[in-house]
Amino acid sequence: MKINVGIVGYGNLGKAVEEVILANKKYNLVAIFSRRAVVSKYNTLVEKYDNFASYTSKIDIMFLCGGSKSDLEIQTPEILKYFDCINSFDTHSKIKSEFNKLESIAKGTNHRLIMSCGWDPGLFSVIRAYFKAIGGNDSTTFWGKGISMGHSDAIRRVDGVLDGIQFTVPNSNAVNLVKKGDLASDIPHHFRECYVVAETGKEQEVENEIKRIPNYFLGQPTTVNFVSNAKLSSLKKIFSHKGTIIERFNFGSKLKFKMDFSVAMDSNPYFTAKIMMAYEIAVRRLKEKCISGAFLNFDIPASFLFETNERDILFSLC
Amino acid sequence: MKINVGIVGYGNLGKAVEEVILANKKYNLVAIFSRRAVVSKYNTLVEKYDNFASYTSKIDIMFLCGGSKSDLEIQTPEILKYFDCINSFDTHSKIKSEFNKLESIAKGTNHRLIMSCGWDPGLFSVIRAYFKAIGGNDSTTFWGKGISMGHSDAIRRVDGVLDGIQFTVPNSNAVNLVKKGDLASDIPHHFRECYVVAETGKEQEVENEIKRIPNYFLGQPTTVNFVSNAKLSSLKKIFSHKGTIIERFNFGSKLKFKMDFSVAMDSNPYFTAKIMMAYEIAVRRLKEKCISGAFLNFDIPASFLFETNERDILFSLC
Repeated sequence: MKINVGIVGYGNLGKAVEEVILANKKYNLVAIFSRRAVVSKYNTLVEKYDNFASYTSKIDIMFLCGGSKSDLEIQTPEILKYFDCINSFDTHSKIKSEFNKLESIAKGTNHRLIMSCGWDPGLFSVIRAYFKAIGGNDSTTFWGKGISMGHSDAIRRVDGVLDGIQFTVPNSNAVNLVKKGDLASDIPHHFRECYVVAETGKEQEVENEIKRIPNYFLGQPTTVNFVSNAKLSSLKKIFSHKGTIIERFNFGSKLKFKMDFSVAMDSNPYFTAKIMMAYEIAVRRLKEKCISGAFLNFDIPASFLFETNERDILFSLC
Repeated sequence: MKINVGIVGYGNLGKAVEEVILANKKYNLVAIFSRRAVVSKYNTLVEKYDNFASYTSKIDIMFLCGGSKSDLEIQTPEILKYFDCINSFDTHSKIKSEFNKLESIAKGTNHRLIMSCGWDPGLFSVIRAYFKAIGGNDSTTFWGKGISMGHSDAIRRVDGVLDGIQFTVPNSNAVNLVKKGDLASDIPHHFRECYVVAETGKEQEVENEIKRIPNYFLGQPTTVNFVSNAKLSSLKKIFSHKGTIIERFNFGSKLKFKMDFSVAMDSNPYFTAKIMMAYEIAVRRLKEKCISGAFLNFDIPASFLFETNERDILFSLC
C-alpha cells in the first residue's frame, strides 16, 4: 500500500520535493496545495491552500515547503492540526519558540511534526549535537559558497532595493585556522557578496544601508554589486551550496582529536528535499509507537530513518 | 548527587575510561573490576572480577572495557543481569547475534545496554545510517593510518608468530577516486603493514601464512616486517588513528551531492572512552523513561546525549 502524501507550497523547495516523491514508488502524491495559481509540470493535482482540511482522510503526511519568512509560521500550526507534517523552518533564532508552540498543537491534536528538517538547521544540528556531546567544545560551522536566504531577505528589506541576493563565502584563512584548533575569532569567518537591483540614483545609499544591518552585515566584509534584473535572475539559478562543521578538542595536555563533517550540493532545495523524505519514515515509526509531538532532527534516532523491517540494513552499517 | 560508575577490564581502554571519568566531577568512580592483579595509578579501588554482583546497590552503570575477542562476549551477559552497561564490542560480524542475545537479557532483567559504542562501530555506524537514509547509496569507509585490532589478532593466531600488530593504511588513490564518485572497486582500498616477532627460522612460512588469511589479508597488498620485541613494544604505543566516510549520490542525471565525515585522534582508546562517556547520559535518559533493552548508537537520538535540563543547549546548536 502506498503512502499518501501532500505538498504545501510550490516554490523551489516544493518543486524539488515533488520530484523526489515522484521518483520513489512507495509514495502516492495526492495534491500540491498553493495560495497561488500554479501548474505542476508533472500534472500533479494542484488544490487551493484553503482546501487542505478536506484531505484528512486522503493524505497521511504533508511536506510543508513554504518560506520560513512569511509562510511556515502561519501554515505549520494550521496544517498540523489536521496532518502529520515535516517542515524545514530555518530561522535559527525562532526555532525554540516555534517548537514550543507547535509541540503543544501536535500533542493536543495527536499529530507529529518534524521541524527545521533541512541540512542546516537539520542534519547539521544533529552533527553539532554529536560533536558537542563527544568533544565538549562548540564546533565551528562554515557555509558556502552559496546563497543565504536570511541575508538575501535582509537585503530586500532595505529602502531602494528592488531585488537582491547574497552569496556567503567562507574565509579560507579562517577555515584553515579553525582546522588547526584556533577559533579564528579575530578574523571574519565569511565574506558577504551582495547582488542588488536598486532604484536608479539610490545605489550609494543602498550600499551604506546594507553594510549597516546589524547581525547580518555590520562588521563583516561585505561587497555590494549593482546588477540588472536579467543578471540577478541568472544568479538566482545558482542553487549549489556547501557547508562544513569543524570540531577540535583535547584531552589533558597532550591528546588532540578532530572531527569534521562536510556537505556539498549542486542544489540546495533538492538536498533539503532528500533530507525531508528521509524523515518521512521517522514520522511513521513515531506513529506506530503512538508517539505524538514536535521533533527536531536530533530528537529522532538514525534508526528511525529505516523501516521497521530494515533492521538488517542497519546491522550491515555497523 | 554524583553518578556512581564502575569499570570492568583494565587494559588500554579501561585506563582511558578511568581518566575520562576522573576528569568529570559529576562521576564517582566506585571500583575497577579485573581478573588480573592490577593497580590503578589514581588509587581507584580494584576489585576481583567475580565480586561485581555485590556492588549492585553501589554502582549505577558499568563501563565494560574488556577485549572484543575473548572478554566482552562472556562478561557483557554476566554483568548486564545486574547493571546498566556500555561496551564497545567491535567484532562487526557478530554484532547482530550479540545484540539479539543481549537485548533479551536486558529486557528480562530491566537493564539497558549500549553496545558497540566506540568510533567504529559506534559513531561511524550512526553516520553511515544518515548517509544511507539521505543519499540511498552505501558509503565508503577508509581507516588509518592506525593499528587494527582485528587484523593484529589474526596475525597472532598464525603458527610461528610470537607477537604482532598490523597498521591499516588507506590507499590515497582509492580515497581520491571515491571522492570523485567512483567506487574504486578495482583497486585495493587499504594497505596492510604487519610488524611481527616470529620464531627464528619460521619467517618465510609466517609471511606466506599471513598473506593467505582470507578476509583479512588475502588479495590485499600486505607487507610483513619482522622486528624485535623491543621494536614491537614501541610500535604498540602508537595509538593514533583516523577514519573517513565518503558518500556521493546523484538525483536524476545532473544533480550531484557529497557528504564527508572524518575523525583523527592521537589516541584510539581515549576517543572511544569519550564516546562511551557521552552515551552514559543516554543510559540515564532511557532509565528515566522506564525503557530497557539493548541499543546500538543509531537507536539513540543525539538529544539523549544531553541531560533533560540541557534542552537550551540543543536549541543553541540548531
